Amino acid sequence: MSKDLGVCYYPEHWPEDMWAKDAADMVAAGIKWVRIGEFAWSRMEAVPGKLTLEWLDRAIDVLGGAGLKVILGTPTATPPRWMIDKHPDMLAVDESGNPRKFGSRRHYCFSHDGYREESARITRIVAERYGRNRHIAAWQTDNEYGCHDTIISYSEPAKIAFQKWCRDKYGTIHTLNEAWGNIFWSMEYFSFEDIDLPNLTVTEPNPSHVLAFRRFSSDQVVRFNKVQADILRENTDMPLIHNYMGRILEFDHFDVGADLDIASWDSYPIGFLSDRLEASDDHKARFLRQGDPDMQAFHHDLYRAVGKGRWWVMEQQPGPVNWAPFNPAPLPGMVALWSLEAFAHGAEVVSYFRWRQAPMAQEMMHAGLQTPDGREAPGMAEARQVADIVKAFDDVESSQSPVAIVFDYASDWAWHTQPQGAGFDYFRLTFATYRALRRAGLSVDIVNSDCRDFAGYRAVFAPGLATLEPSLVEAIDDAGAIGVLGPRTGAITTEFRIPEGGRPGVPGLDARVELIESLPPHAGMAVVGGGTVDHWCERLSGSAKPLLSLENGALVLMAERNRWYLGGFPDETLFDRIVGLVSEAGEFETHPMPEGLRRRMLGDLEFLINYDAGDVTHDGQRIPACGVVVRKDGQVLAESNMN
Amino acid sequence: MSKDLGVCYYPEHWPEDMWAKDAADMVAAGIKWVRIGEFAWSRMEAVPGKLTLEWLDRAIDVLGGAGLKVILGTPTATPPRWMIDKHPDMLAVDESGNPRKFGSRRHYCFSHDGYREESARITRIVAERYGRNRHIAAWQTDNEYGCHDTIISYSEPAKIAFQKWCRDKYGTIHTLNEAWGNIFWSMEYFSFEDIDLPNLTVTEPNPSHVLAFRRFSSDQVVRFNKVQADILRENTDMPLIHNYMGRILEFDHFDVGADLDIASWDSYPIGFLSDRLEASDDHKARFLRQGDPDMQAFHHDLYRAVGKGRWWVMEQQPGPVNWAPFNPAPLPGMVALWSLEAFAHGAEVVSYFRWRQAPMAQEMMHAGLQTPDGREAPGMAEARQVADIVKAFDDVESSQSPVAIVFDYASDWAWHTQPQGAGFDYFRLTFATYRALRRAGLSVDIVNSDCRDFAGYRAVFAPGLATLEPSLVEAIDDAGAIGVLGPRTGAITTEFRIPEGGRPGVPGLDARVELIESLPPHAGMAVVGGGTVDHWCERLSGSAKPLLSLENGALVLMAERNRWYLGGFPDETLFDRIVGLVSEAGEFETHPMPEGLRRRMLGDLEFLINYDAGDVTHDGQRIPACGVVVRKDGQVLAESNMN
Amino acid sequence: MSKDLGVCYYPEHWPEDMWAKDAADMVAAGIKWVRIGEFAWSRMEAVPGKLTLEWLDRAIDVLGGAGLKVILGTPTATPPRWMIDKHPDMLAVDESGNPRKFGSRRHYCFSHDGYREESARITRIVAERYGRNRHIAAWQTDNEYGCHDTIISYSEPAKIAFQKWCRDKYGTIHTLNEAWGNIFWSMEYFSFEDIDLPNLTVTEPNPSHVLAFRRFSSDQVVRFNKVQADILRENTDMPLIHNYMGRILEFDHFDVGADLDIASWDSYPIGFLSDRLEASDDHKARFLRQGDPDMQAFHHDLYRAVGKGRWWVMEQQPGPVNWAPFNPAPLPGMVALWSLEAFAHGAEVVSYFRWRQAPMAQEMMHAGLQTPDGREAPGMAEARQVADIVKAFDDVESSQSPVAIVFDYASDWAWHTQPQGAGFDYFRLTFATYRALRRAGLSVDIVNSDCRDFAGYRAVFAPGLATLEPSLVEAIDDAGAIGVLGPRTGAITTEFRIPEGGRPGVPGLDARVELIESLPPHAGMAVVGGGTVDHWCERLSGSAKPLLSLENGALVLMAERNRWYLGGFPDETLFDRIVGLVSEAGEFETHPMPEGLRRRMLGDLEFLINYDAGDVTHDGQRIPACGVVVRKDGQVLAESNMN
Ligand SMILES: [Zn+2]
Ligand SMILES: [Zn+2]
Ligand SMILES: [Zn+2]
Repeated sequence: MSKDLGVCYYPEHWPEDMWAKDAADMVAAGIKWVRIGEFAWSRMEAVPGKLTLEWLDRAIDVLGGAGLKVILGTPTATPPRWMIDKHPDMLAVDESGNPRKFGSRRHYCFSHDGYREESARITRIVAERYGRNRHIAAWQTDNEYGCHDTIISYSEPAKIAFQKWCRDKYGTIHTLNEAWGNIFWSMEYFSFEDIDLPNLTVTEPNPSHVLAFRRFSSDQVVRFNKVQADILRENTDMPLIHNYMGRILEFDHFDVGADLDIASWDSYPIGFLSDRLEASDDHKARFLRQGDPDMQAFHHDLYRAVGKGRWWVMEQQPGPVNWAPFNPAPLPGMVALWSLEAFAHGAEVVSYFRWRQAPMAQEMMHAGLQTPDGREAPGMAEARQVADIVKAFDDVESSQSPVAIVFDYASDWAWHTQPQGAGFDYFRLTFATYRALRRAGLSVDIVNSDCRDFAGYRAVFAPGLATLEPSLVEAIDDAGAIGVLGPRTGAITTEFRIPEGGRPGVPGLDARVELIESLPPHAGMAVVGGGTVDHWCERLSGSAKPLLSLENGALVLMAERNRWYLGGFPDETLFDRIVGLVSEAGEFETHPMPEGLRRRMLGDLEFLINYDAGDVTHDGQRIPACGVVVRKDGQVLAESNMN
Repeated sequence: MSKDLGVCYYPEHWPEDMWAKDAADMVAAGIKWVRIGEFAWSRMEAVPGKLTLEWLDRAIDVLGGAGLKVILGTPTATPPRWMIDKHPDMLAVDESGNPRKFGSRRHYCFSHDGYREESARITRIVAERYGRNRHIAAWQTDNEYGCHDTIISYSEPAKIAFQKWCRDKYGTIHTLNEAWGNIFWSMEYFSFEDIDLPNLTVTEPNPSHVLAFRRFSSDQVVRFNKVQADILRENTDMPLIHNYMGRILEFDHFDVGADLDIASWDSYPIGFLSDRLEASDDHKARFLRQGDPDMQAFHHDLYRAVGKGRWWVMEQQPGPVNWAPFNPAPLPGMVALWSLEAFAHGAEVVSYFRWRQAPMAQEMMHAGLQTPDGREAPGMAEARQVADIVKAFDDVESSQSPVAIVFDYASDWAWHTQPQGAGFDYFRLTFATYRALRRAGLSVDIVNSDCRDFAGYRAVFAPGLATLEPSLVEAIDDAGAIGVLGPRTGAITTEFRIPEGGRPGVPGLDARVELIESLPPHAGMAVVGGGTVDHWCERLSGSAKPLLSLENGALVLMAERNRWYLGGFPDETLFDRIVGLVSEAGEFETHPMPEGLRRRMLGDLEFLINYDAGDVTHDGQRIPACGVVVRKDGQVLAESNMN
Repeated sequence: MSKDLGVCYYPEHWPEDMWAKDAADMVAAGIKWVRIGEFAWSRMEAVPGKLTLEWLDRAIDVLGGAGLKVILGTPTATPPRWMIDKHPDMLAVDESGNPRKFGSRRHYCFSHDGYREESARITRIVAERYGRNRHIAAWQTDNEYGCHDTIISYSEPAKIAFQKWCRDKYGTIHTLNEAWGNIFWSMEYFSFEDIDLPNLTVTEPNPSHVLAFRRFSSDQVVRFNKVQADILRENTDMPLIHNYMGRILEFDHFDVGADLDIASWDSYPIGFLSDRLEASDDHKARFLRQGDPDMQAFHHDLYRAVGKGRWWVMEQQPGPVNWAPFNPAPLPGMVALWSLEAFAHGAEVVSYFRWRQAPMAQEMMHAGLQTPDGREAPGMAEARQVADIVKAFDDVESSQSPVAIVFDYASDWAWHTQPQGAGFDYFRLTFATYRALRRAGLSVDIVNSDCRDFAGYRAVFAPGLATLEPSLVEAIDDAGAIGVLGPRTGAITTEFRIPEGGRPGVPGLDARVELIESLPPHAGMAVVGGGTVDHWCERLSGSAKPLLSLENGALVLMAERNRWYLGGFPDETLFDRIVGLVSEAGEFETHPMPEGLRRRMLGDLEFLINYDAGDVTHDGQRIPACGVVVRKDGQVLAESNMN
């Protein structure tokens, strides 16, 4: 598999006589792939049933004819205005009960049958027309499921569908009442028609009710996507892709990914640092124009898992964007760094969003590789540099990492349903674990919670995994890996009850959670030897071996052979100590990194990635500011440097 | 009257074969009372009109048979799902106009006639069935009126009822227009049907309108409760109780209490510190696992007044809870301390919530005396210690305090209607007064604003009392007590107008408010000799004797004989000085306390209550961390100590 | 034109037998004008069609008879309750879709045809009755358009009217789609009926759509006002006035002002400091009881432009108000200072709000010149002092300033539509420019963006002017003035697109914006020589002469002859440097002022205005705390001093 660059392009935005030159310029810049079509429904079918696809035929011809491979998107993220007249109740409804109107994008409810049929219809139309087109080399379904908080809808169609989902799952209303514990506060239902969506209740609704609704909401996305995937499969042999977003957790990406061939994601490092990351003001100031040093890597590793090994960056930030609260520009070198880092994590394609900055509408302040008037924007030179550098390791494949983290979407739903402490968040905890492993210079794999093959791993972390199946623990142990479970692992059943056998319920580990406290900021509890437990602290008992304790004597980390349990949310110092203990016990090497520098192995290549604004020298190797050094056997193979 | 422990229990949550052992274990723990039934409507009447109470018969038999006295709750806080089908418009409506849906609890509007009739019907059913049952020793009406912001409803039934309330009160629309000053901004009505509820107006509505609506809303609760009380009275001789909450001020508890025999409240010190108290971050950090040292005492004294001397803690926090933003665990000793402090303030019963932690639904993270799997939780040992200690003073009754504070719910409604400064809050001001008296080591009584018998008091404080009746001042003076009025006392009429005679209108005191300013944080005005006036500052004139002045020369405290007026919101230093001046003038002793230590006299017993996490020695007496020492004539009679 | 005092009075609030004494007291206090009637509709027409204006006849007679000139207001800001029955859909609708109910004021949607006709009807009634009344010397239309966020309404009538507005403007839906770039995200419309209002969309709506809606919303106000103005013109020769508010930007005041004779505004310095000004906590604390030293002056200069030279203060704060989050009292002298400052800026009338504090309703805590019981409030003595002082320069007219600022309402709409960085705000930027000029001791004129005559100006600043017409630049240059454009000037077309020729598109200046970043707080970029660029930073290229650069080398300020372009949002230090550079190049003098002291030339009079709480000595002249010194040729002509 080669490593290619791509770009997102909107032929419908530009006069047809510009297409050929654009295509030629793309090719000249080293770009191999071009994504089109995903927002063009109103130009494909301006009047219901009257198709006008000739322009798209020609656009594909021009682009493909220039040598570009085309990714064609189904246009279902932006149904035309007439669709709302046809299906007035297709709009999603927000938590306050207001329909979310036409006038931007993603204006549909996943539970609306009529719209799903429309989505199937237009998918079939483009699939049949272009499924065997020789220029079309991949397909994208819809666009960024979940962006703009669009998974959860409190519409009437969603209510009806949820009642059906419950009936299918529980069979009788009595079973559901028992499962959810509806006797509590007399919340019992007498028929499935009694079940409402869990918004606008007087105080918080039953967590079992909410978690079921969250599962349902995820399932609706999977179903919606599968309808398109099935139709595409009938008509094409090319790979199917969806472009996920960063830290969108409202649906199970593994489930959607199961029906597709390649996972891709849209990587906006600077926007994400600003709008979706818990970090100190100092950290955000330090990485203001670079993005967080672990956020992209985390998603690369996550989507490599979602894509069952095959993954892309479908949209790569090429300059300042328009949608974050503040939108600074990347430092010179960062566009190249982000791109190379993706390849280091095994990406097949890195595709920039977008070719040319649009002079109008919502994204007119979103940079492209070109300025609105067609000159080169700063990102272009870096893309060209990447195309050049990447040739040095074009054929190297991603290899297994020494450690893995279990990632489980349903756990995020669970802990958002009942955080118990305002500082607790599943992603935050998992990402803190990931950061600690990266600070230790480790490459990391992320695996789904249904993974049972851990051969080759020295350690597996499963923080905050809401429901713990004993087979997971056994599988980790069978592989000879240390399993680090907790905090808050095994804390509930799939129906959101406290497990009858107590928490965490790790087989073969006598450790038990006696009591839980959640903590406000600045109330961290000191650990003997250094570090604190923040946000979340469990009081443990049991005969397992104590490894770490609070200064007040309470146990923090316990182990029985390879089965470890961690009873609190560690700060960075404590997390580093824990990783140290695990690496000792698991007999694998760590490479402690300075802040801002990160390391990733790709096969036998070592990538040193410097997110800092200044040069850094590490182990005798100088890595330039915002630069990447690729080494093989300690020798520099390639290097990016825009400074 | 003895001092007993109790517990809240939900037989409907547990298999029937567990009941007998639970009852025996309660008795063994020293528990005498058990509250049941208040959320069980869906099991009492699963189908409209079809009663299924046999399980409740048996539960009462088992519990009563074990020697426990049963408090039976009317189940009206949680109407079953079918009730909504029967009365679709019974849901309360929030300020934005959204109905507050089924799916948690308290899902009803107090103004809905149909639901009030349903509430009467189910009350009559249980009253007739159990009114003479020998195990039933008390009754609870509904549960926590006002919790989850459920007093104020902007529903259509509330609108109709409010129009009727206005007609009953004002007779003609002209009278109402005059009373409210509706000529202002042409807000005049032409008939009672014109009157809408005061939400969603363009800018703030007329304060007279809002205050009338707030009075009406309180009256609706009183009416709702009285319907149940009247039916219960017909059927039982046992005392009637309601369990109020902490700092819920949207209805007049004195009015509800007038129809009941005993007041009780639900005491959650750690949650309340976190979610409903103005205090510095330092203070909240210091008392994170203990709760505020004055918050419980304030409510004990308040509810002793609401209960006309008879009061309980119906729900006592026994460990971490689930509903605050952060939920830390109590320090060892705190459960005992809270319980003993309640008895020190004259509680007859302290009842823990709940017997066993539920493994499901909204409160699954709320600790009980037992863990979900039936083992002892940390609170159990403390409850047992309390049962033991309390024997030492089982028969001592609460006695009158040297000082009193006037507490008036309508004043809170008034000042929420028109705060005039974002830092001003009635409860905050009254509680600051209470704290100052407690820092001086004083026991305090709280009295309703209609109290006219002050015999025995040396001083009476009436801060922020919106409307001042001259007879109150006369009654205080007649008792020989110093009356400390203000700030913002006598500031409006009952119709929310500036009194014609000016403010504060204290008879026999020539002090007049010329001008008022509200102040942002950190803008306190320095007082000569120490301390500041914060939040609220009145400019006073008049011939009364000046006692304290601002450094800019403005008067702060003025007096004429026993009639004092305070023209600002004091900080702690100033409040301590004022209490000092009052104690000198009123010739009563104070006992200045270190931070965290509090003192309360119960008859001739002196309770020293240490909220601090460390031991403290005061006047030669060591009080352990989170401990209570009970002394008689300076000798230790009893002591709690879990450390 | 003389300089007069006025007052706002509500005869309908007081017994008729008080009117004569009130009128006499006004005259005795030196007051010449009295405004009445603007909220009295329910007393003018208590029943639809039945006029009851006799009381108003008598009130005008009494006031006029005492020698006062009467300003009569049309009562359309407060339609009576029966109006809502007649036109139930006349209420404005908020962004969430909720109608904004009756019960306060301004409860109407500008787009409702029925209400506009009612407004015309009542205007005609009063115009015909009083148009030639000899006591009526001016007319006010409605009251404070835009107060309480009342310009923008998402009602059904607004939607219909907006569709019509679009049809009138664009002719065909294809033209509109092209203009707005609706191809983006398939937002194309197929007919004008497809167009919805831009609220409740899934993510942000098209900025072209929003800006069009903002223009439409402003036009609706202009139309509403013009209907009244036209009717009044038919019936009176007296001047027509509207009373605008501070920092209300949702409609174009120049457009409304074009149909009137005099602009007036309602000046509440202390409330505005607290609730509508970006400033540090220190600044807000320092001027807590004085108001911001530039905020009033800015509006004086703005409304002098809106009034084409003729302007008043219709409502002057005379003491504490009721509506800000915190409401402190003015320091002694401030009421006089504010009044004199207005006259220094050319006001014809300063009118206090209100004569007597109301004892009821929403504004009962709003001070007047009298207390509710008719005694003098602190403001009265200051008003009297002003009446006396002003005689010294009664006939001096406002003269042209050396510098001007271009102010453009549509630019505020544009940048609210798409701030791109949360710290960017048009008013904030323009006001920062104004402050810098005032710190340099300069008098400033404000001009509308259609101004093309700049004769007499040395420099003209046009920061943030969204759309730049070349003729503006030419006109400034023709006048020999330096034109300082930017930041963010010329950044979009009128349809909210990036101009085809690039940004800023200043003719005759080779400077080009290559890239834009918006910055979070504390991320200012240092400028060589001192100061920082905050919030907004453009990367400039071009051959124009570089005047200032960032320390990282990027250009900040560029010039070609008199045409300057500024590429960032300067902090105070940088702004002072820029003003210094401009004054050098433009050869005009500056007079750097200490903080709190301000200077304004009125003809040949120099006003030194001291907002500080302490005395200040400047250039040998002592100005008392909160005092004003008026000098001619360096000699003191008059002085206010309440201390
Ligand atoms: Zn999350
Ligand atoms: Zn309150
Ligand atoms: Zn603005």
